[in-house]
Amino acid sequence: MYKKRLYAPGPTEVPPEVLLELARPVTHHRTAEFRSLLGEVTELLKYVFQTSRDVYTITGSGSAAMEASVVNVVGAGEKMLAVVGGKFGERWSELGKAVGAEVITMDVPWGTAADPQQIADALKKHPDIVAVYVTHSETSTATAIDLKAIAGIVGKTPAVLVADCITSIGALEMRMDDWGVDIPVTGSQKALMLPPGLAMLACSEKAATKIAKTKNTSYYLKIPAYAKNLAKGDTPYTPANTLILALKTALGMIRAQGLESIWAETSLRARAMREAAQALSLTVYSRNPSDSVTAICVPDGVDGEALPKKLAKDYGLRIAGGQSQLKGKIVRFSHMGYVDNFDTLAQVAGLEMALRDLGAKVEIGRGVAAAQKVLAGA
Amino acid sequence: MYKKRLYAPGPTEVPPEVLLELARPVTHHRTAEFRSLLGEVTELLKYVFQTSRDVYTITGSGSAAMEASVVNVVGAGEKMLAVVGGKFGERWSELGKAVGAEVITMDVPWGTAADPQQIADALKKHPDIVAVYVTHSETSTATAIDLKAIAGIVGKTPAVLVADCITSIGALEMRMDDWGVDIPVTGSQKALMLPPGLAMLACSEKAATKIAKTKNTSYYLKIPAYAKNLAKGDTPYTPANTLILALKTALGMIRAQGLESIWAETSLRARAMREAAQALSLTVYSRNPSDSVTAICVPDGVDGEALPKKLAKDYGLRIAGGQSQLKGKIVRFSHMGYVDNFDTLAQVAGLEMALRDLGAKVEIGRGVAAAQKVLAGA
Repeated sequence: MYKKRLYAPGPTEVPPEVLLELARPVTHHRTAEFRSLLGEVTELLKYVFQTSRDVYTITGSGSAAMEASVVNVVGAGEKMLAVVGGKFGERWSELGKAVGAEVITMDVPWGTAADPQQIADALKKHPDIVAVYVTHSETSTATAIDLKAIAGIVGKTPAVLVADCITSIGALEMRMDDWGVDIPVTGSQKALMLPPGLAMLACSEKAATKIAKTKNTSYYLKIPAYAKNLAKGDTPYTPANTLILALKTALGMIRAQGLESIWAETSLRARAMREAAQALSLTVYSRNPSDSVTAICVPDGVDGEALPKKLAKDYGLRIAGGQSQLKGKIVRFSHMGYVDNFDTLAQVAGLEMALRDLGAKVEIGRGVAAAQKVLAGA
Repeated sequence: MYKKRLYAPGPTEVPPEVLLELARPVTHHRTAEFRSLLGEVTELLKYVFQTSRDVYTITGSGSAAMEASVVNVVGAGEKMLAVVGGKFGERWSELGKAVGAEVITMDVPWGTAADPQQIADALKKHPDIVAVYVTHSETSTATAIDLKAIAGIVGKTPAVLVADCITSIGALEMRMDDWGVDIPVTGSQKALMLPPGLAMLACSEKAATKIAKTKNTSYYLKIPAYAKNLAKGDTPYTPANTLILALKTALGMIRAQGLESIWAETSLRARAMREAAQALSLTVYSRNPSDSVTAICVPDGVDGEALPKKLAKDYGLRIAGGQSQLKGKIVRFSHMGYVDNFDTLAQVAGLEMALRDLGAKVEIGRGVAAAQKVLAGA
């Protein structure tokens, strides 16, 4: 028997105490109790976003919040920069086109981080760019960018910086106010330890000013409606209130441990995974690996689509394979949310065994030993 | 001690067996298991919608599906008819304006049903209307329209008929295919016995044809993306998969009882409530009452905002007051979803006691007796 373990880069495992909140009787949302709950959750989200600005909670996938951060900010015909180095970067470009923006796409080789200087150059070349869209942690390639440096550059221009932080917030260091990230966007089902169904974003004053000046055609995703209602403790539309109740418990756990500690642990686990890969002569796909998810190249001679299936079927480990051009070429392991060091050991041990089963030459235990040394600080 | 009972017209009570599904470990959605689940849920939804067409499940509030049914169907500058007889009818008009449509608003006095002949006249006067938006059960006024008759009229024109069935599907008779309702829209937290967070809609061939010809600027709510993905058993964006899992259980309960039986029971309970109101010399607000929710006028001399508060605080009954122009003037009781005849008795008994507490002259038990006679078929 192997337990079912969910190690995909989202949805991730949800702590049992959070799951049990989801089974509580449903309550009504136009009540003082709900307003108080939403207020508490918003305060906790402000901590997780590292901001003094309000954080808006939308009932929807992360993609809904991504769309909100485009349709509210960029008017039809306005110029935006989309930095694209993976499947989720591509979504910025698609969203810009959907709203009729003039999208300048900066293609970055998959698995590498955007060079902040290139973004500075693009902004210099196109001073009428109204917003820059980046992906803090590109889940499809397991690659992180230097968001702080990019925020420093964009902050000196009139452009609004929007960052897909769906697999960074709560896992990687992200300081909205200190760094000057104008709109960070995230989702519930990654480092925030909740099932899918909620998406969150916050807007700096600079972003709010641009939004106020922008005509947008959306309704459900209209940010000013969320802002106006949140001021009264409400949401503009019926919220997924059971998820919001459970979010309070999940965020309370994050608050209790402290973000710095979580960031450090996530980083350690990712490093352990990378050291394990090296010990097993496997290649980490990304040149600039994100600490929230590790992508490892499937070695020659191994069926890359069979590998995640075998891990799920024979070892209970649900991980992710590659998407689009990386299909069959990489496997991805999450270090976000409700995981501990022993989960990292299970990830490495499972990988070793499944690779051996699929015909690769693997010295069983070599990767686990390397990972454990890192985790134990040895 | 009084138990907490949720009798607001949404969110409604969720059966314990459905709540427990929500507490199950989270799984990944890009798997054969999820595809099979979504397939089963879609088949059950087709039964509930009474259609052979696919039903799309969107992660979001009912308003998200309402927006989808506008932005995908009506292009900027095109003409649409919005029939408005309450707060949710107003939403159709607002949504039309948001997408830049030319909105013809047909105002119907609150608490009365739209006259099908008036809709026929409007379509005759404006043959270029591309879509008609109605509210099958207007939750704010507890009023139902004759959707079958309206569908018969709109079906003879090129216009697409879109119906807000958020508080009708699963409670009132609604036969998408037989009646010719082109796009019925619903939400999870009403008669479908689930918490908020999912919205569903289906498109007739006529609607799909119009959608294919319409340029729309939405991304998250783009219906063709849902259609394309559902054909592979997928959703275009990360779905609220725990809600979908629980939906299977809730819809299974509906399937097991059978829609006709549920419609008849809902109707009986609503009639019992209306008879009780009459026995208590109270006025039912609507001239064309919906069977899914009953609005009763607050009698003179009673504080209409205090009444729902007292019911919640002293008797554990969470009902809804009036919205907008009906604030303080009505109280609304749901007959949708997970309720039985004894719940109706509790609603009437609670109303009698709370009215007495607030100074009204009430013969305790008179309404309950009238309701029970109806429920018992006496």
